[in-house]
Amino acid sequence: MKRLLIITSLFFAMTSFIQDKPKKIVFFGDSITQAGVQPKGYITQFGQMLEQKGLKDKYELVGAGIGGNKIYDLYLRLEDDVLSKKPDIVFVYVGVNDVWHKATSGTGTDPDKFERFYQALINKIKANNITLILCTPAAIGEKNDASNQQDGDLNQYSKIIRNLASKNNLALCDLRKEFQDYNSKNNPENKEKGILTTDRVHLNDLGNQFVAEKMLPLIIK
Amino acid sequence: MKRLLIITSLFFAMTSFIQDKPKKIVFFGDSITQAGVQPKGYITQFGQMLEQKGLKDKYELVGAGIGGNKIYDLYLRLEDDVLSKKPDIVFVYVGVNDVWHKATSGTGTDPDKFERFYQALINKIKANNITLILCTPAAIGEKNDASNQQDGDLNQYSKIIRNLASKNNLALCDLRKEFQDYNSKNNPENKEKGILTTDRVHLNDLGNQFVAEKMLPLIIK
Amino acid sequence: MKRLLIITSLFFAMTSFIQDKPKKIVFFGDSITQAGVQPKGYITQFGQMLEQKGLKDKYELVGAGIGGNKIYDLYLRLEDDVLSKKPDIVFVYVGVNDVWHKATSGTGTDPDKFERFYQALINKIKANNITLILCTPAAIGEKNDASNQQDGDLNQYSKIIRNLASKNNLALCDLRKEFQDYNSKNNPENKEKGILTTDRVHLNDLGNQFVAEKMLPLIIK
Amino acid sequence: MKRLLIITSLFFAMTSFIQDKPKKIVFFGDSITQAGVQPKGYITQFGQMLEQKGLKDKYELVGAGIGGNKIYDLYLRLEDDVLSKKPDIVFVYVGVNDVWHKATSGTGTDPDKFERFYQALINKIKANNITLILCTPAAIGEKNDASNQQDGDLNQYSKIIRNLASKNNLALCDLRKEFQDYNSKNNPENKEKGILTTDRVHLNDLGNQFVAEKMLPLIIK
Repeated sequence: MKRLLIITSLFFAMTSFIQDKPKKIVFFGDSITQAGVQPKGYITQFGQMLEQKGLKDKYELVGAGIGGNKIYDLYLRLEDDVLSKKPDIVFVYVGVNDVWHKATSGTGTDPDKFERFYQALINKIKANNITLILCTPAAIGEKNDASNQQDGDLNQYSKIIRNLASKNNLALCDLRKEFQDYNSKNNPENKEKGILTTDRVHLNDLGNQFVAEKMLPLIIK
Repeated sequence: MKRLLIITSLFFAMTSFIQDKPKKIVFFGDSITQAGVQPKGYITQFGQMLEQKGLKDKYELVGAGIGGNKIYDLYLRLEDDVLSKKPDIVFVYVGVNDVWHKATSGTGTDPDKFERFYQALINKIKANNITLILCTPAAIGEKNDASNQQDGDLNQYSKIIRNLASKNNLALCDLRKEFQDYNSKNNPENKEKGILTTDRVHLNDLGNQFVAEKMLPLIIK
Repeated sequence: MKRLLIITSLFFAMTSFIQDKPKKIVFFGDSITQAGVQPKGYITQFGQMLEQKGLKDKYELVGAGIGGNKIYDLYLRLEDDVLSKKPDIVFVYVGVNDVWHKATSGTGTDPDKFERFYQALINKIKANNITLILCTPAAIGEKNDASNQQDGDLNQYSKIIRNLASKNNLALCDLRKEFQDYNSKNNPENKEKGILTTDRVHLNDLGNQFVAEKMLPLIIK
Repeated sequence: MKRLLIITSLFFAMTSFIQDKPKKIVFFGDSITQAGVQPKGYITQFGQMLEQKGLKDKYELVGAGIGGNKIYDLYLRLEDDVLSKKPDIVFVYVGVNDVWHKATSGTGTDPDKFERFYQALINKIKANNITLILCTPAAIGEKNDASNQQDGDLNQYSKIIRNLASKNNLALCDLRKEFQDYNSKNNPENKEKGILTTDRVHLNDLGNQFVAEKMLPLIIK
């Protein structure tokens, strides 16, 4: 009798322990994600949204963004900056520099190699039983008439990411599409920045909020 | 009485002389125009279309295309290759290399400088009382979902050309728009070439015919 | 007798007028020349050196530099910014952006077109009986072991300029060679900036003095 | 007594087995190495040189070159194409595309990332107790007056490789230096190709022989 009691309480304790342990979410990306942990950053706002829903203790949020990173940089530091932290969920948000650096330093990423490294990254993360969510790169310029210099290329790399999500059965946060839809409605003067970004690429406060809002439903259904 | 007759016949002779002298059209551009004088080239087909309409003798067609040319190359050789030929009409068809060479050799043209050289070119041609028709650059890739690498940039440079046509009161042959419309209807597999181009940029026979068909109405109303 | 006197004094007056009229020197270039008119700029220091030699009144110095300019920009604004000012002497100091912009924006200048525009510029200036002095582009990076990214290309464009000077019988101010010689002796730590430049390209005070010192002997023998 | 005999013969058999097993050398690189296995390729000639020295059976040569490869491509396929083959010795010959692709497609490799991926590659290979030999990238253009477009950048990346060899205590095959020395003596007309390369980059027969000759002494002392 006594033994049963002990076992039962142990069971409850374990359950309780399991329930209490927050799920760890790593946001893995470039300078946009690096800025995401700032006071108005998208990771910070993501946390505040969880708090408003009373879910603050259920999740632990970790920013793992480094400025200038391309897909192969993420691949190279995956072990140290993501896997070693044993996350439950990883958002991968990359692609802007793979496209942009073609023009600004001649060091972008070929589309076929972008796909190959991204698939290799997915393989390694999935092998660790981590829930993986892929994000498309939102914008390099906010003009809504398809005349930002890198629009075609960003669309191409976004398609690669959509295909990877589909092929690997992964959730997709299609920020590229969301930004395009938003700008087509909310950028009547066809400005190249200042709607959701400060400088065509990096998020302003509203942009950070917008990204957090698009990511949240992929975590809490 | 007799005098009147003489004057009248002189008048007819002059009129006849004026009518008989064909209008000279110079096609001024890059490798696409250089290939335009080949047997199936757009200039050749343009001539055949005129012939079918019984207008062969009314026009003299001159190809002035050189591979790899950008707007400033046209500007530099304007005197020698266009003005010295005393044309009545000039089609300017340029812009692909200004965009494309950014990626293939690092030697494209900045958009502001593209506009400045184009305006300078317009000024010089207009100062010679030549009818000027501007063409937008058709395509670098024929995918119809806005995912060709240079789509955004080509759209940007096409907008510059549309604005220049509008600002300078010039006729516009909007090949960029025509190609996009055509591909959205006739490229169901979303191929990057083989619809109107052989290699994403240069025109196949149908592409040459298509361009000639779009140019013709700007000459014969 | 009286008449002779008048004529003679008129002659002296004219001579005196001719002697007094200073020679106008236009410095034609990019941002390096734009900064040349600042208090420690190379044009300002050039003027101070003239003053020290008691030649201040013999020369009028005009800066005609615009940031980001490449050879074809100079060509485009030659009439407005140089010829219209009727200079006696023109220093052309260009080439850095023609090379550098290949990497930073994909909008550098092909070497064959660099040469063609430069020759066209020379032709126009020479047709106006102006003394022309060509400068080679000094540096993009000051490492002295030939390992600055653009070293090979800068050497190539400098060779083009040397050949143009030779072919057109023009004086040459070989800043590229002078900077390389200086750095090989005065940059023991092989630093990429801080010797004659502030940022690998633009001149510090010493660099401005150095350029002025190399230009001066080409004016006063 | 009998037992001793058995043991002894076993010992000889083992020794013989060890002596007979050839050392496996993998040549790991880009298109230059991919062409290395052709009849006159550098790997083939390397094998012939071994044969002439009576060492044919001592070595097994394996080509592992893929056209267009950059350092991170090598890193990505290291396991499949090198480690899985359990080589004794690996020549790494890479760097041309990391530099060249900056200009031809905007997809070169930043120098800091080149170093990071190269170090990661070294770490993995060394962890498998494989003898590692690093090669510097020979040439993009053979002009011997430091005026090939990528000369500065190739020198920079070669310095990175030399430092990596030194820091990691690895043998170095300094092809960059060897090619520069050879061209300074054997290219009197300062041609950009045709001395050791066919097209400024890829090796002609003599170039393949030259590379084999420079590699050989690093294997047989």
